[in-house]
Amino acid sequence: MCSLIAPHVQQGGIQTAYVMPNLVPPISNTDQAVEYHASLSKLAPTTKFLMSLYLSPTLTPDEIRKAKASGVVWGVKSYPRGVTTNSASGVESYDVYYPVFQAMEEAGLVLNLHGEVPSDTDKGICVLNAEALFLEHLHKLHAAFPKLRIILEHATTRAAVKAVKECGDTVGCTITPHHLQLTVDDWAGKPLNFCKPVAKYPDDRAALRAIIKEGHPRFFLGSDSAPHPLASKLPSAATHGLETVTSCGCAAGVYTSAILLPLCTHLLESFGALDKLEGYVSTFGRTFYRLSEAQEGISSVTLRRVGAGSEGTTEAARVPFAYIHPEHEAMPEGAKDRIQVVPFMAGATLNWEIAP
Amino acid sequence: MCSLIAPHVQQGGIQTAYVMPNLVPPISNTDQAVEYHASLSKLAPTTKFLMSLYLSPTLTPDEIRKAKASGVVWGVKSYPRGVTTNSASGVESYDVYYPVFQAMEEAGLVLNLHGEVPSDTDKGICVLNAEALFLEHLHKLHAAFPKLRIILEHATTRAAVKAVKECGDTVGCTITPHHLQLTVDDWAGKPLNFCKPVAKYPDDRAALRAIIKEGHPRFFLGSDSAPHPLASKLPSAATHGLETVTSCGCAAGVYTSAILLPLCTHLLESFGALDKLEGYVSTFGRTFYRLSEAQEGISSVTLRRVGAGSEGTTEAARVPFAYIHPEHEAMPEGAKDRIQVVPFMAGATLNWEIAP
Repeated sequence: MCSLIAPHVQQGGIQTAYVMPNLVPPISNTDQAVEYHASLSKLAPTTKFLMSLYLSPTLTPDEIRKAKASGVVWGVKSYPRGVTTNSASGVESYDVYYPVFQAMEEAGLVLNLHGEVPSDTDKGICVLNAEALFLEHLHKLHAAFPKLRIILEHATTRAAVKAVKECGDTVGCTITPHHLQLTVDDWAGKPLNFCKPVAKYPDDRAALRAIIKEGHPRFFLGSDSAPHPLASKLPSAATHGLETVTSCGCAAGVYTSAILLPLCTHLLESFGALDKLEGYVSTFGRTFYRLSEAQEGISSVTLRRVGAGSEGTTEAARVPFAYIHPEHEAMPEGAKDRIQVVPFMAGATLNWEIAP
Repeated sequence: MCSLIAPHVQQGGIQTAYVMPNLVPPISNTDQAVEYHASLSKLAPTTKFLMSLYLSPTLTPDEIRKAKASGVVWGVKSYPRGVTTNSASGVESYDVYYPVFQAMEEAGLVLNLHGEVPSDTDKGICVLNAEALFLEHLHKLHAAFPKLRIILEHATTRAAVKAVKECGDTVGCTITPHHLQLTVDDWAGKPLNFCKPVAKYPDDRAALRAIIKEGHPRFFLGSDSAPHPLASKLPSAATHGLETVTSCGCAAGVYTSAILLPLCTHLLESFGALDKLEGYVSTFGRTFYRLSEAQEGISSVTLRRVGAGSEGTTEAARVPFAYIHPEHEAMPEGAKDRIQVVPFMAGATLNWEIAP
């Protein structure tokens, strides 16, 4: 899977990728991050990978300082227990991590928050209000560590947009392209569009679009691109057996890496925010992460409208139905599903493509 | 499919079934209903089937009187356009049907409402607020036809419970067993639990449970049991092809017919409403539909707690992973999925069973 998707970052028009640590097992210390960084860099030598650590009780202030010194770790990601894929070892309370956050603030590492509280039916908490109920934690952390850079990742609600706006300059917010497009209706009965946080009400989507259209510099692209094999997104009785299918669910996640920049362009144009594209996909995030363009050797990418006077571009702009490593293309259909990845908007035509 | 599931009504402990008309094509006139009634009665001679017609522009006051005279049609079901399975020919405005409703009121037929307005992202309408936004239509219809018996079917929200309570004695409300159990978290990424109306917030489920626990006589069982083949609930690339799978969704519906009475008993006990079981599953609905027990020759059903002093009952109380017609059991797995039906709570053990 890694060899299939690592090169997709560049293919999608992106030169710098922030790598989330929720692998199995998670990337929870510097040595693991350095090793993971080396393997990704080998697969995609022209992409700069910024690594993160998984927040867990094994993380210490000393480890934070070691991470900073490594030169490849840029932040620490926090997952609430059980609310997202591979986050079983995540956290519910933050107080115990205050010494770690203190060290992060001093070292200049970023705290990336998966901003949802765990579902609890008896307490009235479900995937629909889990983000809104998290926001008090964001405010509390920001108040306790005003100089710590915090990013509320993959925000999905009007409430989250409002909360981040109310914070100071050290608090940023990522918005995925798929959350700029989806609402709850799009994943109800459609597991390929199912991700966490789930896409919410039309009014929430309107708030996400509005803040991007406003060009607010603390709201920027975070793809949250998640490559799950089709068999995990849509388990079948033939592949998994009837008992497994009836008891387990579909993996949460939407995959956008290979089409990321054309997709963002297509979507921002759809709601009249094309003039905010560079800020959303590049400069706002780079500024927040303190990545200067000159320093990082970033080159510009040119996008062109599909079919605008050029020939043979339509096919290139059609999103593939699935990605599969060339070595696996000859596999039988059922086996293929265990390795191929269906991207967001599979089969759709995007209005923009990256110019060669 | 019909020959598999028609006998399940009796197997589930039920003697009278109200049959919804949303087939392909829909049952939209008396002749079709009489024919459908005959075929169901042949498959399950001991079950009494009450038929309904599909509300559409072809329905006239004369047809209503003909339906009533048939002796097998008890009501008319309304589907908002596009909001539920096979409801493409449904309706959005009710005014045009006032002459039909007038005839129904006079003839004593029941109006069954699928109480959701169609989703419309631009107007802020999605599957989560579609029921609450429908309630003004319920109040309007009730005010216009105070003697017309109306049932708000498969209510899922606190708002719907409140709205029905505020109406007079001619307005009833069904609540499915699965909506007494599920919340949005249970169908997020789990297509087998996906149905319409979708299960909503924990607070909504609490309101549904509370009104059953209260023993309110206008709130009663409507199973909304929908038998979709597994391949429709969980389409696979191997069976349907990659292009189909990426563009289509999973069928909406939960199947409970074969386990209905034990399931209701199990669930009502789980929230302390076992003493309201008879009202919920039998007397309240029969009274609303004006079915006297003596007149219909209904016999009582005895339930027993699983494992309570008896031997060998545990296996019988386990919900099967799937139902398939004996003629199809030898089919290969992939082909089987096109005909077998996975029930709600497949593989779980219910605490109650029907005594032989």
